[in-house]
Amino acid sequence: MPSPWFTHELKVRYQETDQMGVVYHANYLNWFEIGRTELIRELGMPYRSIEAKGLLLPVIEADIRFVKPARYDDTVTIRTRVEQYTNIRLSFSCEICRDGETLASGGTRHVWVNRDWKPARIDKEAPELYELLKKWSG
Amino acid sequence: MPSPWFTHELKVRYQETDQMGVVYHANYLNWFEIGRTELIRELGMPYRSIEAKGLLLPVIEADIRFVKPARYDDTVTIRTRVEQYTNIRLSFSCEICRDGETLASGGTRHVWVNRDWKPARIDKEAPELYELLKKWSG
Amino acid sequence: MPSPWFTHELKVRYQETDQMGVVYHANYLNWFEIGRTELIRELGMPYRSIEAKGLLLPVIEADIRFVKPARYDDTVTIRTRVEQYTNIRLSFSCEICRDGETLASGGTRHVWVNRDWKPARIDKEAPELYELLKKWSG
Amino acid sequence: MPSPWFTHELKVRYQETDQMGVVYHANYLNWFEIGRTELIRELGMPYRSIEAKGLLLPVIEADIRFVKPARYDDTVTIRTRVEQYTNIRLSFSCEICRDGETLASGGTRHVWVNRDWKPARIDKEAPELYELLKKWSG
Repeated sequence: MPSPWFTHELKVRYQETDQMGVVYHANYLNWFEIGRTELIRELGMPYRSIEAKGLLLPVIEADIRFVKPARYDDTVTIRTRVEQYTNIRLSFSCEICRDGETLASGGTRHVWVNRDWKPARIDKEAPELYELLKKWSG
Repeated sequence: MPSPWFTHELKVRYQETDQMGVVYHANYLNWFEIGRTELIRELGMPYRSIEAKGLLLPVIEADIRFVKPARYDDTVTIRTRVEQYTNIRLSFSCEICRDGETLASGGTRHVWVNRDWKPARIDKEAPELYELLKKWSG
Repeated sequence: MPSPWFTHELKVRYQETDQMGVVYHANYLNWFEIGRTELIRELGMPYRSIEAKGLLLPVIEADIRFVKPARYDDTVTIRTRVEQYTNIRLSFSCEICRDGETLASGGTRHVWVNRDWKPARIDKEAPELYELLKKWSG
Repeated sequence: MPSPWFTHELKVRYQETDQMGVVYHANYLNWFEIGRTELIRELGMPYRSIEAKGLLLPVIEADIRFVKPARYDDTVTIRTRVEQYTNIRLSFSCEICRDGETLASGGTRHVWVNRDWKPARIDKEAPELYELLKKWSG
């Protein structure tokens, strides 16, 4: 059952544009990541401290649909929610909006691994994080 | 009917890594784009000259599966093929490989637009490009 | 006579790190640019609207000294001031700080050009902008 | 005494452009780094293997002058040479050229550090690398 949406705003950087005069498409994946970083911070455990515990959360799948281009200096809203989680996996949905209009939407799927990139069970290796995810996803 | 695979090699840049010690995931979309740029060059009409005609080819959808991480200074092979094309749309499949092993795979879907971002029919606006695509895709 | 310092905060993005575990050095130039963008906004004329008038402000020189590395998720403060300005040129000084400590410092020098990259005199082509610069640098 | 120039070519990526229609200025620092990476490879010891020994070569200073903009799909030549070296420091000069014309030039200064970012003496910690530098710089 998906969690509530969490929103975070950012301003489009000049460096993120390309010669089409719009945001280069790969940057939306970067924004998706910023969205889930901020959601995880809101959860109560910054991703930085999760990595400090030796847990990494690489992306194993991503998909994205581009509807309208974002432009330099636009204020865009990143809406993110936890779509599904287990003790080894986690997935997010994400929308990029401007003035209430969706510019892009998609999702990312992740697996928890340890520093050696072996799958990790977070209910065992970070039970407090697992509880926070449960609580967040209601 | 998909076209043959076209391959292009590149060396992973330091700037493309992140603190996990691997390539930051969004960069694979950049490599996908380099793959299709080089395929289009091979077709006989560099993308640069297509844009000079006033045609743009923005991405409208992308998906990607990450299998194994690429690392700094790896030589990776980008394999790209035209998956489908019409007079208004174009789609590519793409694989990122290292030593014969697939690191990531996915696809992008595009629509031809003119400088005002209105849909463009390339059989009318760039018939020679349309012929090249036909010939390439056999 | 240099203007007062203008400060702007940002959070270090994951994508900005490299495999040394710190921010990749070229990104500081991007932050310098964000700093002067926000200073120009504060001046009363967003850079976006300056470009809309047909004026561009490319960098012609940049220098930077790196003292301590910024890291993922750090909150860094960008301090920027106008160092010098004439009707055709503009220069900024910039410092990147964290918790009151300077991580990097440097400067950029710019020239005003029009859309054809020919030098532009802003006292003639954008007198209201020139007045704002005068007032700011007071 | 500076070393001979070492040259390396690359093709400008779409992602490296910005809405001015030229290469975003911070990317030149990335190209400088690619230039010295390839020079160090030519020396006989890839930077990757230097890092594997536990030595890092962060940038402590950089300066750059921008003369003419590089554009999408340009083939640019990176010319790099060792400007100075000691057992703890190293500096490079770099030029970015297109068709024999200089687009940008500058330099970077570096210090050898170990994994804890403490200064390292490479004549002691990597004497074979120190010999290679001596030989290269004639």
